[in-house]
Amino acid sequence: MGHVLVLGGARSGKTGFSEKLATRAGKRAVYLATAQALDDEMRERVAAHRDQRGAHFDTVEEPLALSAALREAARTHDVILVDCLTLWITNLLVADRNVADAVDELVAALQEISDTQVILVSNEVGLGIVPDNAMARMFRDLAGSAHQRLAEICDDVFFIVAGLPMVLKGAPPPTSGGRIHEA
Amino acid sequence: MGHVLVLGGARSGKTGFSEKLATRAGKRAVYLATAQALDDEMRERVAAHRDQRGAHFDTVEEPLALSAALREAARTHDVILVDCLTLWITNLLVADRNVADAVDELVAALQEISDTQVILVSNEVGLGIVPDNAMARMFRDLAGSAHQRLAEICDDVFFIVAGLPMVLKGAPPPTSGGRIHEA
Amino acid sequence: MGHVLVLGGARSGKTGFSEKLATRAGKRAVYLATAQALDDEMRERVAAHRDQRGAHFDTVEEPLALSAALREAARTHDVILVDCLTLWITNLLVADRNVADAVDELVAALQEISDTQVILVSNEVGLGIVPDNAMARMFRDLAGSAHQRLAEICDDVFFIVAGLPMVLKGAPPPTSGGRIHEA
Repeated sequence: MGHVLVLGGARSGKTGFSEKLATRAGKRAVYLATAQALDDEMRERVAAHRDQRGAHFDTVEEPLALSAALREAARTHDVILVDCLTLWITNLLVADRNVADAVDELVAALQEISDTQVILVSNEVGLGIVPDNAMARMFRDLAGSAHQRLAEICDDVFFIVAGLPMVLKGAPPPTSGGRIHEA
Repeated sequence: MGHVLVLGGARSGKTGFSEKLATRAGKRAVYLATAQALDDEMRERVAAHRDQRGAHFDTVEEPLALSAALREAARTHDVILVDCLTLWITNLLVADRNVADAVDELVAALQEISDTQVILVSNEVGLGIVPDNAMARMFRDLAGSAHQRLAEICDDVFFIVAGLPMVLKGAPPPTSGGRIHEA
Repeated sequence: MGHVLVLGGARSGKTGFSEKLATRAGKRAVYLATAQALDDEMRERVAAHRDQRGAHFDTVEEPLALSAALREAARTHDVILVDCLTLWITNLLVADRNVADAVDELVAALQEISDTQVILVSNEVGLGIVPDNAMARMFRDLAGSAHQRLAEICDDVFFIVAGLPMVLKGAPPPTSGGRIHEA
């Protein structure tokens, strides 16, 4: 079962698209959030998102040790939705970890996990003007490099705009007209 | 007659592409500008654009009350080109209006208008680094949400890069090779 | 032999994709870099890139006089990879040259060069929030206009995301599955 990379901009509908893919892919789905509910506002947003996804999604939070969390979740689930890689990379940078090494570990974990489908959601952040801020430039370089590496090993790669997928690699999503909406 | 959403970046050729679509769609075309000609520079730019479009386009300016302007224009025109939604959303924010409510009204108006084709032009703004500015973050979230809602009810959605369309939904534009240029 | 325009974001894999295209296109390939190796760090990066490309690529550096450099390189090479146009436009702005005139000259040079394929790499920079900085706004308008003009005269135009091409114009790249990677 091949893994999936879902790229898109802010509020592009990439998470909603990925949740529909996950719902089709298996009965035992888990949402692996890289965000941490550190304050009340964040806790409320996380709870609201959990209610939206419905009861058939378990939820796990892991800001840093993504590969270990994936291996753990794969033991008990058919499909894992990771939302999102850009926040995970941000967390790694803030924690002063080596992002390239962590991406290598993620690639290795994905190649080991064969009975569970992993759907990776990430923000495309490299299509604006070069940021003034050196940290932002480093971040977008690291995100872009991670996307390239992951796109190589995923079977399906989508680029979402306005909730609608463009197929970068693999087959169109399983609905008529190349769309997963209104299916 | 289905409505059309045309997304693209700055200077991506989305307006030129949309004007060609509008020219094919009907004889009585109106250009509904959400920009206001507040100063001389702006008045000159608006006049230059009007001359470019040619005599078969009427022009209406409406910065805020878009749904009412659409209903009004639909009485007397075959096709309405709205340019652009991102500026309209900016105008709403500056005027302290509720953007989500205004988008709901726009969706309702579009669903009522069935004998006139509406072509909506908007800037995709969510593919760069997260802006430092809280207002800019709110704006791109509102724009992204609006694009998703409108993409659901439009029959054709295009993403324009370098003047060339990628089809997100619907049929390729009516020229060979998936292109509307040089047709 | 038609020319090619390869657009993409930061670290999108557009140069790697273009190098593969160039390797297929001809035996006598030249890499026309618009970057200047002004300091040691830059010299090291340029040398590292040259080693990556391998021995079959010659390298020429030309920050400003791109059209003259293309005509010169076309006499002795089958394929010219220009990397990248956005940096060239930046160099023109810094040198206070007229960018629109320089793009006109580039278009004229490309139309003259018929026995050598030119592959133009450029950054798409117009898909983020409008920059605060007036120079950045002018730059992205000039880049967007240049991309539109060049897309009109190129036979193939690609938009690269995560190392994978979307076809804006022309035929898919010469590998199965619409991908040039792993070919």
